[in-house]
Amino acid sequence: MSRIFNFSAGPAVLPGAVLEQVRADIPSWRGTGMSVMEVSHRGKDFDEIARKAEQDVRELLGISDDYAVLFLQGGATLQFAMVPLNLSQSGQTVDYVQTGSWSKKAIAEAARFCAMNVAADSAESSFTTIPPVDTWRVSSDAAYLHYTPNETIGGVEFHFIPETGDVPLVADMSSTILSRPIDVSRFGLIYAGAQKNIGPAGITLVIVRKDLVGRARVDTPTLLTYEAFAESGSMTNTPPTFAWYVAGLVFAHLKAEGGLEAMAAINERKAAKLYAAIDESSFYSNPVDPACRSWMNVPFVLADPALDAGFLAKADAAGLKNLKGHRSVGGMRASIYNAMPEEGVDALLEFMVEFERTNS
Amino acid sequence: MSRIFNFSAGPAVLPGAVLEQVRADIPSWRGTGMSVMEVSHRGKDFDEIARKAEQDVRELLGISDDYAVLFLQGGATLQFAMVPLNLSQSGQTVDYVQTGSWSKKAIAEAARFCAMNVAADSAESSFTTIPPVDTWRVSSDAAYLHYTPNETIGGVEFHFIPETGDVPLVADMSSTILSRPIDVSRFGLIYAGAQKNIGPAGITLVIVRKDLVGRARVDTPTLLTYEAFAESGSMTNTPPTFAWYVAGLVFAHLKAEGGLEAMAAINERKAAKLYAAIDESSFYSNPVDPACRSWMNVPFVLADPALDAGFLAKADAAGLKNLKGHRSVGGMRASIYNAMPEEGVDALLEFMVEFERTNS
Repeated sequence: MSRIFNFSAGPAVLPGAVLEQVRADIPSWRGTGMSVMEVSHRGKDFDEIARKAEQDVRELLGISDDYAVLFLQGGATLQFAMVPLNLSQSGQTVDYVQTGSWSKKAIAEAARFCAMNVAADSAESSFTTIPPVDTWRVSSDAAYLHYTPNETIGGVEFHFIPETGDVPLVADMSSTILSRPIDVSRFGLIYAGAQKNIGPAGITLVIVRKDLVGRARVDTPTLLTYEAFAESGSMTNTPPTFAWYVAGLVFAHLKAEGGLEAMAAINERKAAKLYAAIDESSFYSNPVDPACRSWMNVPFVLADPALDAGFLAKADAAGLKNLKGHRSVGGMRASIYNAMPEEGVDALLEFMVEFERTNS
Repeated sequence: MSRIFNFSAGPAVLPGAVLEQVRADIPSWRGTGMSVMEVSHRGKDFDEIARKAEQDVRELLGISDDYAVLFLQGGATLQFAMVPLNLSQSGQTVDYVQTGSWSKKAIAEAARFCAMNVAADSAESSFTTIPPVDTWRVSSDAAYLHYTPNETIGGVEFHFIPETGDVPLVADMSSTILSRPIDVSRFGLIYAGAQKNIGPAGITLVIVRKDLVGRARVDTPTLLTYEAFAESGSMTNTPPTFAWYVAGLVFAHLKAEGGLEAMAAINERKAAKLYAAIDESSFYSNPVDPACRSWMNVPFVLADPALDAGFLAKADAAGLKNLKGHRSVGGMRASIYNAMPEEGVDALLEFMVEFERTNS
């Protein structure tokens, strides 16, 4: 099979070395005669990889002991409910920043449980900007402020961390986590669905300041409280063991590759060359304010949308897969997470130049 | 590597043919150059296997169009909350039958949301029996009656379906589903964590009568309503795609092996020969009322518990893995789900006879 490059927004490409390890471990993992899918989460072998996964992600992100690291189910979408149920009381005010489709969904769910204050909103610019921080209308008594550091669909990314003083800062980092170092100590809670930079869909990483754990509303289902998982090492019930194992392989792989400083350098370079090519061309364009363009998801459109189908078909034939933009914005989107090698971006650029040449 | 037999209670052994397929599909599934973990759940390829999985499990269990078939996250344990939140109103009476550790946990969670009536309880017999149905104290106005057809830890199984008239019958079938044909039309709702007879941990099967969908309490988190998943084909948010794919392979495998009638014949035979050997010996014993012994989980103890450690070590060395009983009951437990071949049970019997001979 010839080499392909998978630009899927998620579930997304995994590191080749990780997939090879997964393959090698079936059907006999560690010489046990069993695959990792077939053993108890309570056993010594699994517990060891679960603990190592936590340790490695703590090391990668520099997470202090003031934070619990949890491995949950339900995706980032379940966090849209768990965050308000755990960090606010009924009817309490919460601040949210709306910068695209995912923050909008987070707001819709939290508004069912809280007094919602949308402190800032870039809907007017069709979610191509981040409202200047000095225009945010924050509450004096918010339980927390929630934002979405990277909007997977619009390709809008915060290249700074908002300052919220004593108000806990909560971030949905699903599509940006592990792409570069972050200062975890600035956050009350970080959550991320796995299926972009962590591993297969079906596991969710939550990093929560320990003093925020144990405050869930009394009528919260047990499995929707952070407390239950913090107390049990994320084994309140049977965890998604295979996804946890693959996430652990990804963490170990990132460490071996030089950690998040190394990832950041590559990711910045991959994004920069793609944006530069788009900006230099009048055939392609990207609508996002250059100050807040995503390193991870690069949406772009053709000047002539009639060429979209041809672009996608030819790209696919050239081994450049899953470049179709989200149905809500159209055009193309290149998701270039950690596991997308720089050669993939180079191959895409080469293809784009050639497609422009033959279609202008 | 020499052949081993894995008696884990769950996550549990998977069919060898399924594991071989999983291995063959990494790193290129269907010739796409991508593994199934790396593609969008919204894509045509994944949607096809998701729909086929549903179709196959409908066929295996004879599920009519009156029922929705959902693939969720959170395990059976999350259903302990979802069932009351979706099928009862606040403070409404619900009936539960307590026959072991798992029904006990289901009761504890539901009691937080409902007026709990424990209609029958076998705690007095240390959960080795099922209280006769004519002694059950059912409510006249229960929202539903919940029971646990197979108790994984105690090894107690219902070999009949309780008659509840117009009261919807709800069953946690985690450790018995697909082990034999069942009459789904007798149930309001059936749920099952995957990690025994379905696939890897991280996906949960829910079969729910359509007229019971859409009644969730108003303050239920969206991802805890059956309605959201019934309307979206279980794609309200990113599903655990890999686990869904493996479950689909298991369903197809069961069909190819002759379906649930064939499974039932083998499972009954495997269990019968194990119980017969235990009963014939004074060295081993099983405490469960013969009328309600599990086909899936066979707990047994040695007359002399001082021999337990030696039994487990020698069994392990002989390739008979994970036979240790649950910490709450001690002794041994042989979990003999669909994927445990009859040769595995035969090998265990041979070992038990030999161990008895050398240790009596």
